[in-house]
Amino acid sequence: MATAQRTSPVVVDTSGSPYARMHPVPVDAVRLSDTVWAPRLTTVREVMLPSQHRALEETGRLANFRRSAGTAEGDFEGFYFNDSDVYKWLEAASWVLASRPDAELEHLVDRVIEEVGAAQLPDGYLDNFYLGKRNTLRWTELTRTHELYCAGHLFQAAVAHHRATGKTRLLEIATRFADLICDVFGPAEQGKRPGTDGHEEIELALVELSRETGERRYLDQACYFLHARGYGLAGGDEYHQDHRPFRELDAMVGHAVRAVYLNAGAADIYAETGEPALLTALERLWTSMVEWRIYVTGGIGARHEDEAFGVDYELPNARAYAETCAAIGSVMWNWRMLLLTGEARYADLLEHTLYNAVLPGVSLDGRAYFYENPLTSDGGYRRQPWFACACCPPNLARLLASLPGYIYSTSGAEIWVHLYADSSADIQLNGRTVQLRQRSDYPWDGTVELEIDTEGDYALLLRIPAWCESGATIAINDGLLLSEPQPGTYVRIERSWQPGDTVRVTFPMPVRLIEAYPYVEAASGRVAVMRGPILYCAEQVDHPGLDLRDVRLNEGAGTAPLVEPGARSLAGLPLLRVEATIASPDAGWDGRLYRTRRHPERLVEQRVRLTLVPYHAWANRDPGPMLVWLRATGPAE
Amino acid sequence: MATAQRTSPVVVDTSGSPYARMHPVPVDAVRLSDTVWAPRLTTVREVMLPSQHRALEETGRLANFRRSAGTAEGDFEGFYFNDSDVYKWLEAASWVLASRPDAELEHLVDRVIEEVGAAQLPDGYLDNFYLGKRNTLRWTELTRTHELYCAGHLFQAAVAHHRATGKTRLLEIATRFADLICDVFGPAEQGKRPGTDGHEEIELALVELSRETGERRYLDQACYFLHARGYGLAGGDEYHQDHRPFRELDAMVGHAVRAVYLNAGAADIYAETGEPALLTALERLWTSMVEWRIYVTGGIGARHEDEAFGVDYELPNARAYAETCAAIGSVMWNWRMLLLTGEARYADLLEHTLYNAVLPGVSLDGRAYFYENPLTSDGGYRRQPWFACACCPPNLARLLASLPGYIYSTSGAEIWVHLYADSSADIQLNGRTVQLRQRSDYPWDGTVELEIDTEGDYALLLRIPAWCESGATIAINDGLLLSEPQPGTYVRIERSWQPGDTVRVTFPMPVRLIEAYPYVEAASGRVAVMRGPILYCAEQVDHPGLDLRDVRLNEGAGTAPLVEPGARSLAGLPLLRVEATIASPDAGWDGRLYRTRRHPERLVEQRVRLTLVPYHAWANRDPGPMLVWLRATGPAE
Repeated sequence: MATAQRTSPVVVDTSGSPYARMHPVPVDAVRLSDTVWAPRLTTVREVMLPSQHRALEETGRLANFRRSAGTAEGDFEGFYFNDSDVYKWLEAASWVLASRPDAELEHLVDRVIEEVGAAQLPDGYLDNFYLGKRNTLRWTELTRTHELYCAGHLFQAAVAHHRATGKTRLLEIATRFADLICDVFGPAEQGKRPGTDGHEEIELALVELSRETGERRYLDQACYFLHARGYGLAGGDEYHQDHRPFRELDAMVGHAVRAVYLNAGAADIYAETGEPALLTALERLWTSMVEWRIYVTGGIGARHEDEAFGVDYELPNARAYAETCAAIGSVMWNWRMLLLTGEARYADLLEHTLYNAVLPGVSLDGRAYFYENPLTSDGGYRRQPWFACACCPPNLARLLASLPGYIYSTSGAEIWVHLYADSSADIQLNGRTVQLRQRSDYPWDGTVELEIDTEGDYALLLRIPAWCESGATIAINDGLLLSEPQPGTYVRIERSWQPGDTVRVTFPMPVRLIEAYPYVEAASGRVAVMRGPILYCAEQVDHPGLDLRDVRLNEGAGTAPLVEPGARSLAGLPLLRVEATIASPDAGWDGRLYRTRRHPERLVEQRVRLTLVPYHAWANRDPGPMLVWLRATGPAE
Repeated sequence: MATAQRTSPVVVDTSGSPYARMHPVPVDAVRLSDTVWAPRLTTVREVMLPSQHRALEETGRLANFRRSAGTAEGDFEGFYFNDSDVYKWLEAASWVLASRPDAELEHLVDRVIEEVGAAQLPDGYLDNFYLGKRNTLRWTELTRTHELYCAGHLFQAAVAHHRATGKTRLLEIATRFADLICDVFGPAEQGKRPGTDGHEEIELALVELSRETGERRYLDQACYFLHARGYGLAGGDEYHQDHRPFRELDAMVGHAVRAVYLNAGAADIYAETGEPALLTALERLWTSMVEWRIYVTGGIGARHEDEAFGVDYELPNARAYAETCAAIGSVMWNWRMLLLTGEARYADLLEHTLYNAVLPGVSLDGRAYFYENPLTSDGGYRRQPWFACACCPPNLARLLASLPGYIYSTSGAEIWVHLYADSSADIQLNGRTVQLRQRSDYPWDGTVELEIDTEGDYALLLRIPAWCESGATIAINDGLLLSEPQPGTYVRIERSWQPGDTVRVTFPMPVRLIEAYPYVEAASGRVAVMRGPILYCAEQVDHPGLDLRDVRLNEGAGTAPLVEPGARSLAGLPLLRVEATIASPDAGWDGRLYRTRRHPERLVEQRVRLTLVPYHAWANRDPGPMLVWLRATGPAE
């Protein structure tokens, strides 16, 4: 295996991948100073990592390793997949260490890694659920108990830790386990045990482990696990994406987290193998998701039952599942699709999902989490500090901690600008360091000034977000370069840059009323409100005495909503104020749920100004109802 | 216990209940000759009972009794509640025997009863799940395994069999088991075992057993089981209606079938005890159901998860659960509320539920069943001949077989007419037999002629359905008696009747477009179509090449839909033809699910005539999409 020198802490290492269009920049290349992500990074360090570590300790997740090592009493405790929470926490801590040295955290991480290593058997096996009295059942319950899923999270953590610190201990643990897995699993013709996991994750993890170690064998094993699906080895059903071979899949079905993790793994494999059928299947699946089975938030997985995708247009609001982990998995998948293709549509969905489906998963103070993310609530649903099934909290931590790595990427002499956020960056480009600075109040304001501090001939590829439907401009050093670039593309600007050059991009941010395709029952006659990349919602706490279900947003040229200057009451986030009408149901209902349709009586309508808050910030104040899809006056499509 | 003489085959025997307003007439007092129910009764006899008996045999449900008796090999097979399917079949067969002698069926019933009896232990215990190797677990898993639920269905079958045939064998089996249950369960202070079942049913069954045998003890035991709820003995949660004591319940929550069975039991107990808090709770629960948690079909239980009620206004269409058994339980409950109070609202819901939520549960030919009853389908959902969890098929059989018992009831010198259907009846009234005949094409036509063939001084109470919002008239012997009676009431007509007197009731049946309360998201901007008590739907099979989701019903005085004369293509059922517009989504979607709202382009709209079929008859022809809630033009409330 590769030696233990510090490698580049990139989120997905496509630097040697023959079929990737571009390569990420390291997490520590970018320093965020914006008002959305930068505070979250602080929260990850100061709140989420410490409190999650406490939870891992208090809930026996760390003790499970000690029990396996023989240094603590008792049998395995908690869910069979609880090891993965420890691994995701290690990965999150590694990304934090990549960005910012922290001796205390590094020491804690080392200690946890030692405990992980102490639990490992001499043959490399490491899964606490099976290291106690269940040892004879090892490898026999793949459909159900996430054995390879946990291994995958170990591998991801090991790769991140190695990239971030250069230390090899966790990578050694991971490769010993990976070697065992490679020895055990494979086609029966090779004398191996056929099998693949009921919860995908091992695929993408093995590819990353292969990239980090140079071991081709891990990539081959990932291919085996991917293509073993569809033949009944992992349940044989849609829930486990085991109903058909991957190359034949044409719709997002089953457990949503599993589905997007699978696709992320397949994308990683495509980056290495270039098998056209994989990319075709991935594009087909992506299209089926965005055209039929995704929430306006970017959340996926409509059903509580099985945490699964529903059928086309099945997108209930109050009962939306939209698991935080599924949104994170969608980001993982879209990031890989973007790296493969350079197509802006993946960056568009990645940005939208980050702001509106991932971020709602954690409270502004970093102390509580959502597992499900409904689009309306009666007020009883609140974030929790931890869960028995705690996949989401450390998943949020590892994504947020690595977020600086998603802003840019490079390809040859090209720098791609995917996300906009006040920040500074040092980007390695053909052996030289290019210094960039973004000055912006994005996502609240659409003006971004990109200062280039390094001279040279290279290209900038600026993403024109699909949400910016018209009016974008690009200027260089105050000279207009381009107006009305095509939304949902990258604009390529190649020139000899001089230090001090400034690219000024402006994305007009009118308030947009969003409508859903008419077949979406749950949004019929309703609109959602967006401005820039941010989805808004109405919360009861801003509207005492008003039933949000009675509100109808007004539409028309004369009632275009405005950003309220200075209205920053919710942790400094800009709110929106929009014109609306209160139209309570007429008096003719008499307690009935159904009646013969009648022309409503002339209602006394009341005009109100409605305060809207970013959906990602809901449920951070007093409990109360919340609504994303608001009834609307105006044209009935 | 009471002796074995043939008693009156009534569905619920309130003849001795001090707090019941009225008493049912026996099942054999009414002979139906209408076009909806009469054919179903034939189907019950000729198709459902024989095929269900075969299924009970083929699936080991009958063999389970033989295994317990030692006359067959092996251990218990199937779900722990499978005994109840046998008991419901026995009840259904009993109601059939009550109406119509059938030596072959009676012989088969006797044989099954002998096998049931042979399985019973000397101490009276009888539950096949616990009669094999699980015997030591008897009474220890009440929350989960339906032990008392199965007992309740045994008791109901025994009561029906005794009422129908006068034979005592099954009643003896039942009372021996009931005696054991009474000995075992009760407050710890009395040295008994505290407990109550996770699935209600025993309560109503014990009350009926008490009525049939005269044993007060069974009634007391029913009261114990009812009031033991709410203290954690049966799960402690809303799912089992064990979160609060019954008297304090204020919303329909948890598993829908359980909830309505519980309420039916509480109503039966109220009929005997008259405890005001019970009736108050029942009325509160009923109101909460009809105002917030019921489908336009009358179906209840919105969630697949837990087969449970959702929160207020949570009424998804495609994912409606609306279990057939829950609708049957609602009929059971409403029937008892009607018997208690004489309030027409219960009869209204009973009629509506029968036509639109119970009847869809079985195919027109009686060969296949729905467990769930969605309000729209993409065409993939079809009735099945049987289920592993087969509660619905025999539940349908027992309700349909007893249906003649729901048309009338009596109180003193009053005859209540609850349901309208072509039929003849012989009703015992103060020692005399009153002969009545209904001549009508109801529910397809709103004219009913009631011929009175027996002289005497007595009153008729005619139900004016709530759906008949205006224009009803009542005439006697062609002389107008009353016009515009209040919908949702009973009109009382007392006189000295002469043989040949005819009461002619007319209920105008315009096609009505039904709207839901504006908070019902799933019906927003949509209408359902009703005519008389019948709910209609659109099926793809009548509209080749058309996407039902694009249809918009036209509204306005000029477009009142009409019954197509002679249009009886679906097993003779009248269809509706209504004017509609096809308005496909405009071209500006480009495969998106969401977009910035725009005024739709001027669409080329196409006018069509839509064929609607009774919802209860859907999915009886070629598979294809179905839709109850149709989009509508017209006033946006």
